[in-house]
Amino acid sequence: MPAPSRHSRLSADGPVLDGIPEHGRVPRYYAVKVELLAVIAELGEGAVLPTERELCERFEVSRATVRQAVGELVLEGRLSRRQGSGTYIAGPKLVQPLATESRRRPDIRPGRRAITLERRVAGSALGADLQVPSDAEVFHLERVLLAGEERVGLESTYLLASRCPDLLDVFTPEQPLSEQLGVEPAGAEERVETVLATPREALLIGTNPALPMLLTHRISWGSDGVPFERVRSLYRGDRLSFTTRLGRAAAHR
Amino acid sequence: MPAPSRHSRLSADGPVLDGIPEHGRVPRYYAVKVELLAVIAELGEGAVLPTERELCERFEVSRATVRQAVGELVLEGRLSRRQGSGTYIAGPKLVQPLATESRRRPDIRPGRRAITLERRVAGSALGADLQVPSDAEVFHLERVLLAGEERVGLESTYLLASRCPDLLDVFTPEQPLSEQLGVEPAGAEERVETVLATPREALLIGTNPALPMLLTHRISWGSDGVPFERVRSLYRGDRLSFTTRLGRAAAHR
Repeated sequence: MPAPSRHSRLSADGPVLDGIPEHGRVPRYYAVKVELLAVIAELGEGAVLPTERELCERFEVSRATVRQAVGELVLEGRLSRRQGSGTYIAGPKLVQPLATESRRRPDIRPGRRAITLERRVAGSALGADLQVPSDAEVFHLERVLLAGEERVGLESTYLLASRCPDLLDVFTPEQPLSEQLGVEPAGAEERVETVLATPREALLIGTNPALPMLLTHRISWGSDGVPFERVRSLYRGDRLSFTTRLGRAAAHR
Repeated sequence: MPAPSRHSRLSADGPVLDGIPEHGRVPRYYAVKVELLAVIAELGEGAVLPTERELCERFEVSRATVRQAVGELVLEGRLSRRQGSGTYIAGPKLVQPLATESRRRPDIRPGRRAITLERRVAGSALGADLQVPSDAEVFHLERVLLAGEERVGLESTYLLASRCPDLLDVFTPEQPLSEQLGVEPAGAEERVETVLATPREALLIGTNPALPMLLTHRISWGSDGVPFERVRSLYRGDRLSFTTRLGRAAAHR
């Protein structure tokens, strides 16, 4: 395999320089990963990656080394495996504002498929978040999140039952929840972290459990300042990223 | 191993119900993981986890099964391995607002250790972000991010050299960068996603490359609306989470 040229990639764009430890020893799988990034850029979205055997010959490395490099690129969403038909160059990650349901960007063509709607007791952690006793009743609405036809996440919404006692009678899967409740969030706090999917979540989202997921927790309150919902949303880390804007807008020249 | 009681965990708090696929087959490692969460809660932060051998005997499972369960809990930041002294119950994740440098919360006792300060050409991607030609000069400042004494991330700041031509002469590692530049960001846009650490990044942060990381990209602009910096910050996914607030504050009763 030709050594990557440090010189030609010395701009701030290059992943190579940023990836090499100061002691200069580059793990072989990582060198292959960098080469594969060039292959990916060249082939373009939707193209089929050469087979493992072809990559082994091209880079003169073992199958295990190619697998590690390809595996990381799949986890990072640069490559995508389709059962029985090989490995493809994936499209860019979707970008979604950290925001309430109604403010999500239309370019993702978001959809939701309801899979659970039930009454439960809050329990202590949720009770504390919603400022109610732990035996207060909540509705739990669980929905698979879609981007077009693609399953990209799983969302659990916990609503104070006292705020919407008729929800089980009036719930309409297609309509935004805030419209059905007649409440408009006046504010919300959202937290983002990485987790691994549980087996159930992986099955529902159609991914494998080792995939890093982005988990957001949101608590929303109404104009009275009192919390009315907690939302736990789990997104495929290889498919989604989030944005947030602070302060005034930038000038665009 | 005793089957987890569904009844006792049927509140919205419980991880068990949320983890079991509808077909009811629970992978053995996942059942062990759920049991370990109870052990973790019981022992509390800083306690030493029983050895692999003890856990194998207690749960009547193989060493590979225990390793998979413990491995996931390490990746998720619930357990922490210290070389030569076993596996410990980790503290909760640190919480950091998605915000500019000066607005970070003081309870993390943040610190930065500068490791690189250099002049570079921007390259095409950074040039586009900063609205300058690709051959424009930038300063690249790279710092290890600390929480107390702990290394939790790695930050690369790219600044337009034309905005701060004397930076190499006046740079003071301990002082916030915005003070040294005499600019206060009027606005910023930040994006969060998950990635895997490169070998170099893993070495600098002192973690292993398979750990999911949170990557934020930020572009900041001044009161003239013109971008002056791009910041790429990489955080240990097992140690950090991010929050953002939308709209007006909640009432606290």
